[in-house]
Amino acid sequence: MIKVSVMYPYAAGARFDHAYYREKHMPMVKQRLGAACLYYTVDKGIANGVWGSASLYVAKCDFICTSVEAYEAALGPHVQEIRADIAHYTDIKPVLQTSEMVVERSEV
Amino acid sequence: MIKVSVMYPYAAGARFDHAYYREKHMPMVKQRLGAACLYYTVDKGIANGVWGSASLYVAKCDFICTSVEAYEAALGPHVQEIRADIAHYTDIKPVLQTSEMVVERSEV
Repeated sequence: MIKVSVMYPYAAGARFDHAYYREKHMPMVKQRLGAACLYYTVDKGIANGVWGSASLYVAKCDFICTSVEAYEAALGPHVQEIRADIAHYTDIKPVLQTSEMVVERSEV
Repeated sequence: MIKVSVMYPYAAGARFDHAYYREKHMPMVKQRLGAACLYYTVDKGIANGVWGSASLYVAKCDFICTSVEAYEAALGPHVQEIRADIAHYTDIKPVLQTSEMVVERSEV
């Protein structure tokens, strides 16, 4: 399985509507992805984190998917709609990371 | 719950021993964290990802933990050991992101 991470770089004073992102945008994208996406996760950056570390990303999500091709095929027809929806919660341009999920969840 | 993400920025030609990271380093850190960490995940960056996107991180992990304080308290005594172990698999200096886990795993 693969993990598609969409990450919004932190910028001081930048707008980010976490509630809209979590309650409206993410479920909408999940619906468009359909069976290509098994589930997603959503994170909110903590400004003063472990050992005082700065927040690199104000928010981010992971889409756990069957393959890169399935993700692209499912989302392709909806890219315009999804990009238009981003403006509802932020002006920050996200960055993308595609990964192979090596350990989905460790045991014990 | 919080998510502590440790991410290794991609650098062309840089050494990264994914097997050591997955089989030796991560279980060792998990053992040191003890009850402060519920589980972890491990990802391996895909060089040519979704829509041809570059790999920002050659590898990364998430530690899902009870709190920032619990993570710091558990790992504090072992920081030297953990940093020394990093050299076994890479020379890349990781970056840290601390997040509040807003959606651990979406349903349906």
